[in-house]
Amino acid sequence: MILESIKNPRDLKALSSAELCTLADEMRATLLKKISAHGGHLGSNLGIVEATIALHYAFESPRDKIVFDVSHQSYSHKMLTGRADAFLCADKYDDISGYSAPDESEHDFFTMGHTSTSVSLCLGLAKARELTGEGGHVIAVIGDGSLSGGEALEALNYAGEFEGRLIIVVNDNDMSIAENHGGMYRNLKLLRDSKGEAQNNIFKNFGLEYMYVDEGNCIDALIEAFESAKAYTRPVVVHIRTQKGKGYSFAESERESWHATPPFDIATGERLFDKNSDTSYANLTAIALLDKMKTDPAVVSLTAATPTVAGFTEDRRKIAGAQFIDVGIAEENALAMASGIARAGGKPVWAVNSTFLQRTYDQMSHDVCLNSTPVTTVVFASSIFCGSDVTHIGLYDIPMLSSIPRLKYLAPTCKEEYLAMLDWSIEQNECPVAIKIPGKDYVESGRVARRDYSKCEYDITIKGDTVAILALGSFYHIGQELRKELASKGINATLINPLFISELDEDTLEALKREHRLVITLEDGILEGGFGQRVAGFYGNSDIRVLCYGLKKEFPIHYTIDNILKENRITPPQIIEDVLEILR
Amino acid sequence: MILESIKNPRDLKALSSAELCTLADEMRATLLKKISAHGGHLGSNLGIVEATIALHYAFESPRDKIVFDVSHQSYSHKMLTGRADAFLCADKYDDISGYSAPDESEHDFFTMGHTSTSVSLCLGLAKARELTGEGGHVIAVIGDGSLSGGEALEALNYAGEFEGRLIIVVNDNDMSIAENHGGMYRNLKLLRDSKGEAQNNIFKNFGLEYMYVDEGNCIDALIEAFESAKAYTRPVVVHIRTQKGKGYSFAESERESWHATPPFDIATGERLFDKNSDTSYANLTAIALLDKMKTDPAVVSLTAATPTVAGFTEDRRKIAGAQFIDVGIAEENALAMASGIARAGGKPVWAVNSTFLQRTYDQMSHDVCLNSTPVTTVVFASSIFCGSDVTHIGLYDIPMLSSIPRLKYLAPTCKEEYLAMLDWSIEQNECPVAIKIPGKDYVESGRVARRDYSKCEYDITIKGDTVAILALGSFYHIGQELRKELASKGINATLINPLFISELDEDTLEALKREHRLVITLEDGILEGGFGQRVAGFYGNSDIRVLCYGLKKEFPIHYTIDNILKENRITPPQIIEDVLEILR
Repeated sequence: MILESIKNPRDLKALSSAELCTLADEMRATLLKKISAHGGHLGSNLGIVEATIALHYAFESPRDKIVFDVSHQSYSHKMLTGRADAFLCADKYDDISGYSAPDESEHDFFTMGHTSTSVSLCLGLAKARELTGEGGHVIAVIGDGSLSGGEALEALNYAGEFEGRLIIVVNDNDMSIAENHGGMYRNLKLLRDSKGEAQNNIFKNFGLEYMYVDEGNCIDALIEAFESAKAYTRPVVVHIRTQKGKGYSFAESERESWHATPPFDIATGERLFDKNSDTSYANLTAIALLDKMKTDPAVVSLTAATPTVAGFTEDRRKIAGAQFIDVGIAEENALAMASGIARAGGKPVWAVNSTFLQRTYDQMSHDVCLNSTPVTTVVFASSIFCGSDVTHIGLYDIPMLSSIPRLKYLAPTCKEEYLAMLDWSIEQNECPVAIKIPGKDYVESGRVARRDYSKCEYDITIKGDTVAILALGSFYHIGQELRKELASKGINATLINPLFISELDEDTLEALKREHRLVITLEDGILEGGFGQRVAGFYGNSDIRVLCYGLKKEFPIHYTIDNILKENRITPPQIIEDVLEILR
Repeated sequence: MILESIKNPRDLKALSSAELCTLADEMRATLLKKISAHGGHLGSNLGIVEATIALHYAFESPRDKIVFDVSHQSYSHKMLTGRADAFLCADKYDDISGYSAPDESEHDFFTMGHTSTSVSLCLGLAKARELTGEGGHVIAVIGDGSLSGGEALEALNYAGEFEGRLIIVVNDNDMSIAENHGGMYRNLKLLRDSKGEAQNNIFKNFGLEYMYVDEGNCIDALIEAFESAKAYTRPVVVHIRTQKGKGYSFAESERESWHATPPFDIATGERLFDKNSDTSYANLTAIALLDKMKTDPAVVSLTAATPTVAGFTEDRRKIAGAQFIDVGIAEENALAMASGIARAGGKPVWAVNSTFLQRTYDQMSHDVCLNSTPVTTVVFASSIFCGSDVTHIGLYDIPMLSSIPRLKYLAPTCKEEYLAMLDWSIEQNECPVAIKIPGKDYVESGRVARRDYSKCEYDITIKGDTVAILALGSFYHIGQELRKELASKGINATLINPLFISELDEDTLEALKREHRLVITLEDGILEGGFGQRVAGFYGNSDIRVLCYGLKKEFPIHYTIDNILKENRITPPQIIEDVLEILR
C-alpha cells in the first residue's frame, strides 16, 4: 500500500503519475472504510482526494501554508501529513479530530470548524510573510458552499486589492451541506459550463486573477494548475470542479444526506443508526412549525444552510414551500431578514446551532433587539450534552444572549414547555425571543405548561425551605436528583424551574429570603457572565448564600459528560458536600 | 420656501420639475446651515438630496418602504417626511436623531446606525409582503462603502435568487468614510466609466437585474429610473452615481474629513472645534504604534474603515505605509486577518469602536481565541462617557468579551497603564488581548505602570478596611471620589484598580475577606453578565456583602451623563447611602 509509505507530504514527490492515482484509490477506500465504521464527513472528503494529493505534490508544506476552510474536508490532508494511521487502524480512529488541528501537526495552521474563514486567515498569513520577509506560498482551499458567508465575501473583496501572493482554491462541487443558495451560484454554474471562459466572472469582479480546472478530480491537471498559480504575484483563484461523494455511488447521487453520516453499511448504504430520533427536539420543531404554517401563511422558518437542525428534511421543506427559507451559509442575512419579516407582520422562526449563532451577535443586537422585532430564535446544540468537536461547542450562548437588551431568552425543560414557549413567541408582538433547546431528546413531563411568557415568573415546582435549587433548562433533572438526595439527608429543599434565562424574577428571589439560607443555581453553559452570577449579584446585599454550578470558561477538548460534570462539581453528591459545608 | 410647504412626501407630487430643483437647493442650503451650527454627517447628506426627492416622488411612502442603509444619509428623507422643522428651526435641531427612527415617523422602518444591513432588512420586508399578500414596493438605499460589509454581501447574494420585487438603490459616491477598499470598487469604477454598460458587472454576477443612472444628482433622470425599476418582478439594482459633499466646495474636494463634522464656518470651512484633542487616547495610540513600527516591521495596525478611531489620519497612514491596513467596512475580515497575521509571526493591533466590535463575536471566539493567536484589540467608545446615538452605544463589551475563553480583557485607568498594556500585549505571544479605552481624554497619573500583565493581579492603590472598592477602568475616578467621601464619614476604605476585566484575582479577593465586610464594584458598562456579578459569584459562599454598580441592561436614548449615573445610583453620595444601610 502506497499510503502506508507516506509519512510526510515530501514523500509524494517521488511518486509517478500512475502511483499518485493508485494512492488516490487507496485513500478513497480508506476513507470509506473508516467513515462507514466511525461516522464523519463523507461527501466533501471523497471529492477532494485528488486535489489534496496535487496540493501536497505542488507545494511544500509546512513552508507553504495550506488552510482548508471549515476543515471538515481535511481527512485526505491528514492522511498525507503523518496521520494515516488514524485512518488505517481502527484502534487509532479517535487519535485525531475531524478538523484541522495545529496540536496534531505542523501542517495544520488553525483549529477551525466554522465556514468561510480561510481567505481572511490566509490574507493574514500572507500579510505577515510580506512584513517579515519570509517566503512561501499561502493557499486557501474553500468550498463553493462556504463562499456565501459574509466573512468569506469580505475577504474575497479585500484580496482583490491585496498586494502579495495568495492562492485561493475554490473547490466547486456545486453543493453546500444542502443545495447552495444565492445568485452567485448561477455565476459559478456559468463558469463551469463555459469551462471558465464566461465574460461575467464574480472572482474577476472582486479584482482577483482567475484560473479554471474542469477536471478537478484529475491529479495531473491539478498539479499543472497549481504550478501555474505559483507564478502570480497577486491573489489568484484556482476554480476547480470536483464531484462531491466521488467514488461512492450513494454519496454521488444523494449528496445532502451523505455530507456527514453516522456509521453505515458500505454495500447497501444503509445507516446503522439514525441521527434524528423520533423524540428529538428537531423533529418536534419541524412538526410544530409545519402545523402552524398550514393555518397561518405569515409563519415562516429560516435556516442558514442547516435545515435539518430544526428537522426540515427535504420532504418537509417541500411541504413548507415558500414558508421555508434557506439563505445558504449566511447567518447574518438570515437573522436580519427575520427582523425585516417581523417588522412587516410576518412571524419568523430562525433555528440555528449555538455555535453559529455567534456569527450574529450584532444582528441580534442592532437589527433585531434595538428594533424590538418579534423574531423567534431557536437555539440548538447549546448544551454540554451535545458532545461535539471543540470548534462547535455551544456553552457560551447564555452570557452572549443574556447581555443583549430586550431579548427574552427562555429555557424549557420538557416538550410541553417548549411547545408552549414556541407558540407564545410566534404569536406575540412585544419582543425578540430566543429558546434554548435542551441537549438531549425531549422528555414529556405531563405538566400543563403555562401559555404566556410575557412576565418573568419562575416556576416553583416544590416548595421547601433552607435550600432553594434554581435548576435551569436541561440541568433541571440534575436539580430534581439533587433535591431527592438532599431530602434523604433530611433537607427539604425548594426546587425551582426558572424558565427565564435573561431576566430575574425578583419577587420570587426576594421571597426566598424568608425561609432559605442558601440558593443553588445550575446552568448548562459557562458560569462566567451567566445566570447564576446574576442571581449572586441580586443576593450580594443579603444574608443569602449562593452557590453557582456550571461550566468553567474554556474550550473543552475531548471530554466525556461524566468527567466534565465531575470536574465542575455538577453532580448531586459533590453539590451536597458543598451544601453541608455551608449549612453545618 | 417650498420646503416649508412639504408636510408629507405626497406633497412633492404636485411640484414641477423646476420646483423640485428649487426644493433641492433649499434643502442643501438648509443642511449646510444646520450642520455648520450643530455638527453631523455632511458629505453623504449633501450627495443624496436629489435621489431622496426622486424616491419620494416616484414611490408612495410609507406604503412603499424605503430603508436607508446606516441611515446617516437620511436627513433629506427626514425633511420630506414631516420633520423639516428640525432642520429649519435652530431650537428644534435636537428634536430628531441623526438616524432613521421609527418613533419619529411612520416613514422610518428601523432604528439603525450600523452599515450594510438594509438589503437583508428589505429582503425581510419583501418576504413578509409576499407571505401576507400585501402590496407595495420595498427599496433599500445603500452607499457604495457599505457594500463591502459581509451582511450586505450575503444579502446581495441571497437577493439574486429571491422571488419577488425588491429595488436596491446603490448610491455610489466612490467613497466610504475614508477611501473604499477592496477589488469590487474597481468594478464599480468600470461600471461608472462605461455608464453601466461594462460586460463585467458584480451585481449581475450576484444574479441581480441592473440599471445605471449616470446623473445621480439629476432629479428627472432619477425619477425616470425609479419608475422603470418598478416594472421588475425580481430584485433590481439601480446604480446611481452621486457626488459626496455636492454643493459645498470644501466637502467636494476633501471628502474624508467632511464625512461627518463638528460645527464649522461655512465661508472658510474652518472647524469651530477639533474632534481629536491632543490628549485623546486616539492620538496616543497612533503615536505609540508609529513609534513601534519604526523599529519593528512586524507591527501592523488594522482598521475596518474607521482609521481615525485610533488616530490614523491620512498623513499618519502614509507614514505607516504597509504597516497600516484598512480593509474597508469589513470587520469580520479585519479580525480574522489579524489572527492570521499573528499566527505567522506578525504583531497585529486592531482598533475598533465597541459598537462595531459586536460584528466580530464569532471571529473573536473561533478565529482568534480558539487559536490563542496574540491579536491586540483596542476597544474605543466603550463608555457611558462617550455619549452617542443609541445605535452606537458601547456599554456591552464587558459581558461580550469576558465570556469568550482565553481572551484577556484589560482596563487601564490612565495613560501610563494604557501604554504599558499596549506594549506588553504587542510583544507577548501567549494570548489574545483586548484593551478597553476609557471614555474621556487620558489622564496622566504619574504612576509607574507595571510592565507585565500575564498574571491577573489587581492593583491595591490604598489599603484600608471594612469596605473595599473595586473601581474598574474609566470608573476608577468614581472609586477615588467615593473613597474620599467615605473617609470623611470615618470609613477608611480600600481602593483597588482591578486592571483585569475578564479574570478574577482570587488571591486578592480571598485576602479581602479578612478585614472587609463589604465589596463595592464599579464598571463602565451594563451590570448584567459583567465584572461585578463575577465578583458577586465569587463571594456567594461567604459573609462578604457585594454591591455592584454599573448600567442597567437597556439601550439608553438621549441621556445626559449626570442623569444616567444618578438613575443607576453610580454617584458617591448614593453609594454611601447604600453602604451605610449595610454597615449600620
